Amino acid sequence: MTTLLKPPDTVPGEDLSVLGASLRRALDGPWADRRAEARAAFPSDNLHRDPGQSIEEARDWVLARLRELSDAGFGAAGIPRDADDPADPAAAVVAFEMLAHGDLSTLIKSGVQFGLFGGAVTNLGTRWHHDTFLPAITRLDLLGCYAMTELGHGSDVANLETTITYIPETDEYEVHSQTPGATKAYIGNAARDGSMAVVFGQLLVQGRHHGVHAVLVPIRDADGNDLPGVTTSDHGAKGGLLGVDNGRLRFARVRVPRQMLLDRYGGVGEDGVYRSPIQNPNRRFFTMLGTLVRGRVCIAAGAGIAARRGLSIATRYALTRRQFPAPGHPDGVVLLDYLTHQRRLLPAIARAYALGFAQNELTTALAHVQGGGEHTEREQRQLETRAAGLKALATRFANDTIQECREACGGAGYMAENRLVGLRADADVFATFEGDNTVLLQLVAKALLTDYRQVWGDLDRVGMVQQAAKLVGGTVLERTAANLLVDRLVATARRRPEELALVDRGWHAYLFEERERHSLESLARRTRRSDSRSFESVNRLGEHMLFVARAHLERVTLEAFIAGIEACADPEARQVLERLCSLYALGSIAADAAWFLEHNRISAGRAKAVNAQVNALCAELRPSALDLVEGFGVPQAWLGASALDA
Amino acid sequence: MTTLLKPPDTVPGEDLSVLGASLRRALDGPWADRRAEARAAFPSDNLHRDPGQSIEEARDWVLARLRELSDAGFGAAGIPRDADDPADPAAAVVAFEMLAHGDLSTLIKSGVQFGLFGGAVTNLGTRWHHDTFLPAITRLDLLGCYAMTELGHGSDVANLETTITYIPETDEYEVHSQTPGATKAYIGNAARDGSMAVVFGQLLVQGRHHGVHAVLVPIRDADGNDLPGVTTSDHGAKGGLLGVDNGRLRFARVRVPRQMLLDRYGGVGEDGVYRSPIQNPNRRFFTMLGTLVRGRVCIAAGAGIAARRGLSIATRYALTRRQFPAPGHPDGVVLLDYLTHQRRLLPAIARAYALGFAQNELTTALAHVQGGGEHTEREQRQLETRAAGLKALATRFANDTIQECREACGGAGYMAENRLVGLRADADVFATFEGDNTVLLQLVAKALLTDYRQVWGDLDRVGMVQQAAKLVGGTVLERTAANLLVDRLVATARRRPEELALVDRGWHAYLFEERERHSLESLARRTRRSDSRSFESVNRLGEHMLFVARAHLERVTLEAFIAGIEACADPEARQVLERLCSLYALGSIAADAAWFLEHNRISAGRAKAVNAQVNALCAELRPSALDLVEGFGVPQAWLGASALDA
Repeated sequence: MTTLLKPPDTVPGEDLSVLGASLRRALDGPWADRRAEARAAFPSDNLHRDPGQSIEEARDWVLARLRELSDAGFGAAGIPRDADDPADPAAAVVAFEMLAHGDLSTLIKSGVQFGLFGGAVTNLGTRWHHDTFLPAITRLDLLGCYAMTELGHGSDVANLETTITYIPETDEYEVHSQTPGATKAYIGNAARDGSMAVVFGQLLVQGRHHGVHAVLVPIRDADGNDLPGVTTSDHGAKGGLLGVDNGRLRFARVRVPRQMLLDRYGGVGEDGVYRSPIQNPNRRFFTMLGTLVRGRVCIAAGAGIAARRGLSIATRYALTRRQFPAPGHPDGVVLLDYLTHQRRLLPAIARAYALGFAQNELTTALAHVQGGGEHTEREQRQLETRAAGLKALATRFANDTIQECREACGGAGYMAENRLVGLRADADVFATFEGDNTVLLQLVAKALLTDYRQVWGDLDRVGMVQQAAKLVGGTVLERTAANLLVDRLVATARRRPEELALVDRGWHAYLFEERERHSLESLARRTRRSDSRSFESVNRLGEHMLFVARAHLERVTLEAFIAGIEACADPEARQVLERLCSLYALGSIAADAAWFLEHNRISAGRAKAVNAQVNALCAELRPSALDLVEGFGVPQAWLGASALDA
Repeated sequence: MTTLLKPPDTVPGEDLSVLGASLRRALDGPWADRRAEARAAFPSDNLHRDPGQSIEEARDWVLARLRELSDAGFGAAGIPRDADDPADPAAAVVAFEMLAHGDLSTLIKSGVQFGLFGGAVTNLGTRWHHDTFLPAITRLDLLGCYAMTELGHGSDVANLETTITYIPETDEYEVHSQTPGATKAYIGNAARDGSMAVVFGQLLVQGRHHGVHAVLVPIRDADGNDLPGVTTSDHGAKGGLLGVDNGRLRFARVRVPRQMLLDRYGGVGEDGVYRSPIQNPNRRFFTMLGTLVRGRVCIAAGAGIAARRGLSIATRYALTRRQFPAPGHPDGVVLLDYLTHQRRLLPAIARAYALGFAQNELTTALAHVQGGGEHTEREQRQLETRAAGLKALATRFANDTIQECREACGGAGYMAENRLVGLRADADVFATFEGDNTVLLQLVAKALLTDYRQVWGDLDRVGMVQQAAKLVGGTVLERTAANLLVDRLVATARRRPEELALVDRGWHAYLFEERERHSLESLARRTRRSDSRSFESVNRLGEHMLFVARAHLERVTLEAFIAGIEACADPEARQVLERLCSLYALGSIAADAAWFLEHNRISAGRAKAVNAQVNALCAELRPSALDLVEGFGVPQAWLGASALDA
């Protein structure tokens, strides 16, 4: 491995192999320059919190660190400074990624302040809100909460119980927590630091319901005391993220001036009459929720970085740690030379690359839709689906992977000084917030069904078969990048799938496509047969929906990987990426091998061979293990794991 | 559900359904009376630690709580008071199970003090050690460490670097940490409370190596200062178990009198000559390590209780929590009515029952082998294999399950007040200590190969086939309880497996047996073909060995479940147990469906039907969900989860 002295993609002092640098550039993809710039500028000398801190110490440290990062431009990045400043969503995602390299409480506190609170003011508010609040929000002079979730209503936002009632007599809104279940819960900045909250609730105007809206409510005075009618309380200890002051909020008929409603999508005018630019209440609700999309893109990105940190620590540890002497290895075998250990880490590294390429496409889609230019409603909807799905996939992967890394480091992995347990504990709740993963996957499946119906909707069973037969390799699947390439690959593979090599990309793409198409078609059939008015009837489809959503997301991810390889010019990196892509694809096929066998998409012999091929790919990639984690873009010095410093 | 006022298996104040009480008795099995007694006597008013405590506060709380539990008879249970008091291993396991219902730091601190430190003195020491130290150990007047693991040597105990050198001039042993890697690491009681340690190291007598032995070394004076030559240090924050003071120990030529060597299996006599009752050094080493078996049985038991606690909390929460209105459910659907939610919890409940029955058999085997009566070497070896394997299976299950429970409770699951995150963090390291799970499963596979060779060893390939053909349904698998019953079931199923009902127990037993037999036979063939002198050749078998070990443990577990049902007299409970057993069996078959398809043991149609049957069983068991968790024997009042008290 030749070492470049200072390739453009390293941070100061970083020693990086040529291959590592090349993989990093490929994985950074269209965002390589911005990420390299951000890495070089990122204040990395105070990345990790002392894990022995008390809750109060952790909160103090995090707030101070947030100010430090914010001063360096890594806080409000991407949030407009005022109404005339254009939004830059990609900058927000890249800044979020950088923050994810350090203490995750700071990351989430930043997300609460700038992404959720600031984001709601930006996206749901109008010029008066922007001019009045954004400067103080971005300067951290005004800390705030995003008070959506209630004790009784987590995922079910449409049925929030908090009320926002217009009072014509005083031209005010009255915010009220009607029931115990209406208590706002798990809210960041609510326990200590927030002095204002964006409160979501049911808007009532002269006895008429207008659905969920959001209003700005001051909650604390300058001394930190609850304002009249507001009751805050502290959730105290949590599974992680100890530096984020999550708490509850209750409102007892709290009045705010009419201007405080974030009324971009609807509110009461000076004449006391409710108006909205979106007439359909359902569409209005989903448009307002659509502002959540950036948060989901960010969480997916942050989960991706967290998984890379875990894999970087465990892989570097496995390259130095020895255990058990063996013939030819008198001082003990290096952990990563054990096949069982390779199987723990290398397929996960391959999947981390795959999800990284998918994340790049997601960030590009976000920049396209929210960057101020033209976009179609279809693009907006697809972005929402992808963001929901990839958030679920990436956070599941992060939690499983960091846990595997923790165990792969044995006792050292359990010590806080090696960072894996803190990372795992902090990232845990990523599976829940910004949308519960199970609920998000159901959203993805519903969106796919909707698309499917738009193509096939009016056809009966016979008509469908005829229609399908007319299309060569007929598919209703929409393609991401690399469309033509994948189409060609699949068309070739379809003819004689079992004769192709196990690492043939066309065969992988064909199987991924078949898995999605067949499961979606059968779900559509079952949906058509089921009685949508019966809970029991729809409930039976639950597991099937989750399968379809995952199959879809795996295909999108594979296609992003293929496009990522196409864009890589360096032949050595490209060869490694091809192996990683095969390892990712075969890992996904192996995980669903039963499905492919049951649906006669692979033979028993070939299914067995897949497992042997995974072992072979692990052996081929083993010599490049260090380069692979260098490609993740996490400098060793940032890992903060004491076992690696010894 | 009729409610008994005070059935014999409840704790005071507990409200238990008839079915719940009956399931509890069945699951408690042969240990029902002892467990019921222990539950009734267990001091349960101070079970859980305040999760907001600092590390020092946690350590203080845990030590005080340990004294409280010890005074109530739940500490040194099963440890002989002196050399004349017989050991009662089952009492130790049952007491450990009770402790596992509360703070797990207290559990592990108890395990370190009584199981490991006290256990080493008991099992590796002789009368002088027992008389001199056990009274103070059991009274908690002498706290100690079990200093086996070194920084450089976790699983590889045979190659520890600490030396114990006999000094004839002064009739002493000199204990020395030769290298940085020889530092004792992750040792409980080492950071603060321990004043003595059982130190494992290489025994050297007049220049001759005698392998690993253990010696008692005082480490701190009465004021808590390190004794001369001893350096202790503190691991500080960990992933959990904050109340256990894990630390490092280094020794710089520390001298102790000759008597301090725990010399039951070897040591220097008054004449300065080394003697051992076991001549073969390898056998001596494994005999000394064999004393670890009780720790593994206890950890498996503790993991079982931890999983039950998690499932109790998540199931009770899912029975009250509602989300999303649906047709016929205007106030929202109860979480456990969603099929997707049933699939998260009910198969795990079934598996918890299965592992509980396997644990009962393991405890019985421990009591048989270590209870002071007669036992064969074969029984001893089988106990060691089972303990290693079930420890790996139960701890993996506990971590996966508690995590699933945490996520199934959403945001509430992440709050420390609902106990799931603390439970998860504390139980995490169960996968590592008392033997890394991957290493333990490899031990199981090696033991199975050894047994296999004893039967088939001298036969070549052709001879094996002939030999196999001679046995009707020829199997080399050894049976647990219910031998004849399972034999009969399998023999019937073997004739026409695909015609049987999906819930036919014979079909399950047949598939479990085939999975183990076939994978073990093919592993034996591959082993015979591989070059045992080549690391690379043996290394290739790694994943195959893990599969064989799991297949074996699943079969043992299924057979324990079958025996447990046979022993249950109550017809209603029996019917529920039959369904649970089917759900466990089909879950295990579904997880390996690809293997069964690849090896032509099931058809594609049947594999699909398995998944539908799992859904059907979930629906059948759903009405009994509360009874199922009542059967776990974890009283609601002990759960300490605030969301359940609301």
